[in-house]
Order: sequence, then C-alpha cells, then structure tokens
Amino acid sequence: MTVDALDVEAANAAFYLSFEQADVDAMAAVWDDEQPDALSCTHPGWAPLHGRSRVLRSWSAVMAGTGSIQFVLTDVRVFVEGDTAVVTCTENVLTGSIASGGAGAAVATNVFRRREDGWKLQVHHAGPLLPELEA
Amino acid sequence: MTVDALDVEAANAAFYLSFEQADVDAMAAVWDDEQPDALSCTHPGWAPLHGRSRVLRSWSAVMAGTGSIQFVLTDVRVFVEGDTAVVTCTENVLTGSIASGGAGAAVATNVFRRREDGWKLQVHHAGPLLPELEA
Repeated sequence: MTVDALDVEAANAAFYLSFEQADVDAMAAVWDDEQPDALSCTHPGWAPLHGRSRVLRSWSAVMAGTGSIQFVLTDVRVFVEGDTAVVTCTENVLTGSIASGGAGAAVATNVFRRREDGWKLQVHHAGPLLPELEA
Repeated sequence: MTVDALDVEAANAAFYLSFEQADVDAMAAVWDDEQPDALSCTHPGWAPLHGRSRVLRSWSAVMAGTGSIQFVLTDVRVFVEGDTAVVTCTENVLTGSIASGGAGAAVATNVFRRREDGWKLQVHHAGPLLPELEA
C-alpha cells in the first residue's frame, strides 16, 4: 500500500472506532468540514442524509440508540486518485443489543477527501449484505 | 446548477438509461476505463464487485436476467469538487417481472470522474430503501 492508502485506511478505521466508542467529537472530526453541504450519509435502509449538520445529528442519534457495538472490517479496498479516495469494506457487526439481532453484516462505500489536516470523510453509504445474493 | 453539475446529471441519467435499454455497450461507455482497477459496484444486497471486467460482467448478467425495467429517479443531488463528482439519488423501480414484485425503491451513491471524454462512473453503490427506517 502507498502512504496515501495507509493514511486513508487509518481515517476509515477512525470512523468506525468513533462509532464503537460513541464519541461524538471524534465522529465530527472524521467528517469533512471544508465542504459541509457536500456531505452525504446513507445508513443501512435509510434514505441519504445530506449536509454536515444533518449527518452528524444522525450519528448522535444512532450512537445514542446503540448499545455496545464492535466492527470487524473485512475486504477493505482503498483506491486513491489525486485528492479523492474511495474505500469499500464489509462491516461485520457485533452488538450487545437483542433488538438488533446481535450480529450482522453490511457493505460500505466511503469517499474521503484530502484536506490540510488529513483525509476527511465526505460520503458514507452502508447497505445491508444479503448473503444469498453474493456473487 | 452549474454546467459541470448538469453534465454529471446527464452522465448519471445515461447510466440508468443503459440499464433500462439493456445496452451492454452503452453501459460499458458509462463506466471509467482510465483507472479500471478503481471501479467498484455494489448491487442491492450484494458484496461490492471490483475492477472494470467484473463490474461490467455483473451488469451483463443483471441485464440479461431482468425483464422490462424503468427507473424514475427522485431526490437527485449532485456535488462537484474538482474532477470528482458525487451523485445521490433514489431509484424508483418499475419492472415487468412478477418475481421482483413489480416495483420498489433503492438508494444509490454514484461517484464520477472527469475524463477527457466526459464524466465517467467509477463507483456505484445501491442499497435497498426500507421505508420504515426513513428519517
């Protein structure tokens, strides 16, 4: 991996860590604030949310409504071209919540932009993984 | 909308039109061929597919296995920054197929790159929209 790709992978990991730790400030630091209107976030099954304030508000709500959660990321792919990077990964989720079924998997596409203070998340799209449809 | 955004929206529409028309050549022309390894495509419920040849092969299979299909796109948002554009939209799907239930909706995030011959699709991620989860 290139240095850029390693940096992007670290930024991607920081995103999931902020969710695991339900750390609102860390989550806010992961997302880009240079182009706040360009942010979009699609939680599994939701319609896309747009704009930094709506996106961060949704994360506060999701994190407040989620008990213990842990992500094991697999099939992490990082592509960097210029100042834009795309990450795809499988989010293998373990939760302490009975309501959520305790475990599951989603697939995510995350777009990062290179800023002066590092790679910042601009787009997150997570969708449910339906095993019977795997290619 | 800026001229760039209009061009991106047209490229996005061409993507769905190629699917409606089951036009393999038009589909191939929509996707970037400058960075073939960077392509990723996530069909609803599937794991992500990577690389131009796997992505296009999947489209040939999907189009061959789909009867009459029509997309009505709503909530189309286009953000352009430099040579990268991100489109989010809701794909309202009408099909002639009984097996597929005839209608449904998915949400998509599509990333385009500006190339010499226009905006080319690099990333497509579509996930099912579960209405009860709408914010």
